[in-house]
Amino acid sequence: MPGGELQDVFAGVNDRVPEGLAEHLRSVALIDHHVHGTFNQVIDRAAFEFSINEGSNDPVPSWMTQFDSPLGLSIRRWCAPLLGLPALADGEQYWKRRCEIGPDELASTMLRAAGVSRWIVDTGFKGDQITPHGRLAELAGGQSSEIVRLERVAEDLIEGGTAADDFPAAMRAALARAADDPAVVGTKTIVAYRTGFDIDWSRPEEADVVARVRELAARAGAPRIDDPVLIAFGVHEAAAHGLPIQFHVGFGDRDLDLHRCDPLLLLPLLRTMPPVPVLLLHCYPFHRQSGYLAQAFDHVNFDVGLAINYLGARSTGLVAESLETAPFAKQLYSSDAFGPPELHVLGSVLWRRAMGLVLGEWVRTGECAEADAIRIVDMIGVTNAQRVYGV
Amino acid sequence: MPGGELQDVFAGVNDRVPEGLAEHLRSVALIDHHVHGTFNQVIDRAAFEFSINEGSNDPVPSWMTQFDSPLGLSIRRWCAPLLGLPALADGEQYWKRRCEIGPDELASTMLRAAGVSRWIVDTGFKGDQITPHGRLAELAGGQSSEIVRLERVAEDLIEGGTAADDFPAAMRAALARAADDPAVVGTKTIVAYRTGFDIDWSRPEEADVVARVRELAARAGAPRIDDPVLIAFGVHEAAAHGLPIQFHVGFGDRDLDLHRCDPLLLLPLLRTMPPVPVLLLHCYPFHRQSGYLAQAFDHVNFDVGLAINYLGARSTGLVAESLETAPFAKQLYSSDAFGPPELHVLGSVLWRRAMGLVLGEWVRTGECAEADAIRIVDMIGVTNAQRVYGV
Amino acid sequence: MPGGELQDVFAGVNDRVPEGLAEHLRSVALIDHHVHGTFNQVIDRAAFEFSINEGSNDPVPSWMTQFDSPLGLSIRRWCAPLLGLPALADGEQYWKRRCEIGPDELASTMLRAAGVSRWIVDTGFKGDQITPHGRLAELAGGQSSEIVRLERVAEDLIEGGTAADDFPAAMRAALARAADDPAVVGTKTIVAYRTGFDIDWSRPEEADVVARVRELAARAGAPRIDDPVLIAFGVHEAAAHGLPIQFHVGFGDRDLDLHRCDPLLLLPLLRTMPPVPVLLLHCYPFHRQSGYLAQAFDHVNFDVGLAINYLGARSTGLVAESLETAPFAKQLYSSDAFGPPELHVLGSVLWRRAMGLVLGEWVRTGECAEADAIRIVDMIGVTNAQRVYGV
Repeated sequence: MPGGELQDVFAGVNDRVPEGLAEHLRSVALIDHHVHGTFNQVIDRAAFEFSINEGSNDPVPSWMTQFDSPLGLSIRRWCAPLLGLPALADGEQYWKRRCEIGPDELASTMLRAAGVSRWIVDTGFKGDQITPHGRLAELAGGQSSEIVRLERVAEDLIEGGTAADDFPAAMRAALARAADDPAVVGTKTIVAYRTGFDIDWSRPEEADVVARVRELAARAGAPRIDDPVLIAFGVHEAAAHGLPIQFHVGFGDRDLDLHRCDPLLLLPLLRTMPPVPVLLLHCYPFHRQSGYLAQAFDHVNFDVGLAINYLGARSTGLVAESLETAPFAKQLYSSDAFGPPELHVLGSVLWRRAMGLVLGEWVRTGECAEADAIRIVDMIGVTNAQRVYGV
Repeated sequence: MPGGELQDVFAGVNDRVPEGLAEHLRSVALIDHHVHGTFNQVIDRAAFEFSINEGSNDPVPSWMTQFDSPLGLSIRRWCAPLLGLPALADGEQYWKRRCEIGPDELASTMLRAAGVSRWIVDTGFKGDQITPHGRLAELAGGQSSEIVRLERVAEDLIEGGTAADDFPAAMRAALARAADDPAVVGTKTIVAYRTGFDIDWSRPEEADVVARVRELAARAGAPRIDDPVLIAFGVHEAAAHGLPIQFHVGFGDRDLDLHRCDPLLLLPLLRTMPPVPVLLLHCYPFHRQSGYLAQAFDHVNFDVGLAINYLGARSTGLVAESLETAPFAKQLYSSDAFGPPELHVLGSVLWRRAMGLVLGEWVRTGECAEADAIRIVDMIGVTNAQRVYGV
Repeated sequence: MPGGELQDVFAGVNDRVPEGLAEHLRSVALIDHHVHGTFNQVIDRAAFEFSINEGSNDPVPSWMTQFDSPLGLSIRRWCAPLLGLPALADGEQYWKRRCEIGPDELASTMLRAAGVSRWIVDTGFKGDQITPHGRLAELAGGQSSEIVRLERVAEDLIEGGTAADDFPAAMRAALARAADDPAVVGTKTIVAYRTGFDIDWSRPEEADVVARVRELAARAGAPRIDDPVLIAFGVHEAAAHGLPIQFHVGFGDRDLDLHRCDPLLLLPLLRTMPPVPVLLLHCYPFHRQSGYLAQAFDHVNFDVGLAINYLGARSTGLVAESLETAPFAKQLYSSDAFGPPELHVLGSVLWRRAMGLVLGEWVRTGECAEADAIRIVDMIGVTNAQRVYGV
């Protein structure tokens, strides 16, 4: 093992967080309700820099480094000690030391430091480059569950030769299998990347679905579900099977039209769908809108994962804004980490720290009791996910 | 009376608010420029929980309580002592104690603790369930004025049998009466709930108004003004009569399309209407946009009422953001309380506390003098409303 | 000279900013990458009040003064001592004292206090009322460069009698001259004021450009480039000449449709244009969106100038939000000052103070080292502008 250990998550701010709350936040075993695997092989510096920039599709240019970003600072602060380096060791030192450690050892060190008891893993993206969910849990010393990506399920069916006429039934069968599989606890849609949210969300006619599959199967290349009818079909079928549905919302790479991923554009769907749990993921910079929706609809929940990592030191402000209008029963914890295991541990450390700072201030000024603050931590960090996913 | 009293509004933060400013904020008699009545009868727990959730139209589900929300924490903190309980008494204790007190006693206790000298009351919503404005003022020991809801005026005319051909003149007569009535100080439109702001705001032709009324009157059921022509007609007629016009903006229940209630969508109207005072209400999460409009147009003003209550401890951040671009002469205080009198007192307490924290920091770091801070409090809390409504 | 001097930029908050960082922020010579000239003549009170209200096109009404705004407080705090008055001298005193000082002396005093070594000046707006860029630099004791406004270049060509058929070549020749002129370091588009960002950003056909110029030249009055084809043509030609392009984004006067100046609406252009530097200016209240774009595209940079001045004491919160997702190599400093030289010095003072408070907190809580904070200051305040503009 790399021989280091995590700095106290309240280093530098211990006087702002009441001790009982701080101790609870240091030790509570979280459910990371939306996460991906870690890289399963050695990566080079360019791949590392690229993988800590969410928005871009280009290599990081030569005149800059992603270490010079809020996320980069947080990696230097929190991950360097895990590798046996001083906190805030510079980017060059960090990279040199990181290269001395194998991917499994690196992953295991970082993942265990995250203090997560269950990883709920989206397995539908670049599965060949990252650890499967069972392996992630093994490296981390925790348990795992699986989230099935709706568009991927549909694409696999079409790629596997399912005839257009058979597609609706095949999709239903696949979702029925998912609903029956104890390892699978929910589904996800990446409609954000395929069409944006401003589509017709009414439940499609079967004949229309068949026609769209026929068109799509006739295109050259691997099938890509970017037809609003097929996306809406997947969402409505998942809901009909009683499966929770995660939505990528807001912050993501530049392939999406961010302004068309404002969660308010989901209102026509949220008002009419069966009330299976909906999980609005990431949400930045529309997290206030998501908190509003989580207040307005019993079945809507949200998180600010991914953005917590990318905002680094500023994640405290984001977590504060996430505690505005939504009831505490409607927010969940996630890292949305993908690739470098730094992201898996940082999500947890930054969330714990931010919750301690925000709720600690509430306790110190009498806005709530320390026991209230601890209960809010448990709801967002653990029990809301247990209720939503039945884990 | 319940035998309790309000905690000091600066409890827990006294060291952050200079004493002169704090003392002024503790005692200044506010004008609540947009508020509704209190419940005039005993309500059960489900009705209470429902009435402290702005966004939803469903009962609060069994696996949660609205006490576990920012607003719920604030009720436990500030209202429990008013009922003779310790601050932060839990939800069950609070509810038990609340049930021992009659609605009038409860209302009177809470309303008097708000320190409001004048309530400017929107009487157009669920009037059968809540106290009329005179009764509210009586319970509170203050004065009241009335705001007339434009859509309700029009609906009453149609429901009362006004012929379509007579409607424009009847609407004008009703508004002339309102303008002449010393109790009425302004009007309100709930276009947010009926069409959203992205409508044609040009002044309608009379013939078009008549035609729309004819269509609407032919529909079954109680008349509901949801036609953009009729809404625009009401707004233009109110302006022609020199009446201030309040607009519900942003945060509200899920019947509205929140993204279509961005106040920037009112630009075509604001640029062309007669410059009667416009009051943008609530505004969250578009309060920065409203502050911008209040800077850009002499006749535009705004508040962050309703949201202050729902954000609870986080209302300090909201008030800080409301003090960004708008001149201090263009913001007003409101609670937008409706139903439980907890909301009437909380609006006031949370606003006073937030203003103390934000302006106190400005004074302590030299951004303004204490006398400036006190003057800003008076403008937003009292004198801007006096100017706008002539009270 | 007026006989005063600038208050310490960390007055009142010295205990929050580590001394090495504070000292660096007090003295670093900035590049103001987007600014205009100062008034070249005496102005009256009404003109002064008008010129410190960004949004409005009307005189400030009699019942208020712009001194009662966040910007007004900051002028009283920071500029009064420069005129030999105590900090926070009231508006009347300030105005009286200001009137005793000639425009050059006033400008020179304020400009020198800004600590700017290079002013990059947009010369395309109301050039007759303000100092040219060379004169600005002379008064300030610094250097200057020029930004050419694309719409103004086109309008000058048309006004100068360029035939529609010759316009494309003439525009290219003008941009080639700009690219060759060592004083000119970039271009700017005010598409925000002319059409909003939701236009067709594909590169126009030459014949279409000629046709649009023909139409425009046929209109009465001075030519005004408000045709999306001509705007897109200017932007694409500037990019083809390798010139940096500044975009007015967000906050501005009410002639623009603020919601149509959300920088996300530029995505279709940003994804397809040649990667010359793009500079998103001001951005408030869409600064988080701009930070996202600066992360997502190597060639996109942004600032929060203009808004820093107008937010006054609240600029600290804005600067904090500007340090969220963007790499530190992608943000620049500007004042966007125009007219009263108070705006030129305030932009600098408020930025230095806000950076000290935000980064000082990061250093004190261990989020970064003091050397990191100083490097971030240098990147945003100086070296990013050097890289982008080649100065």
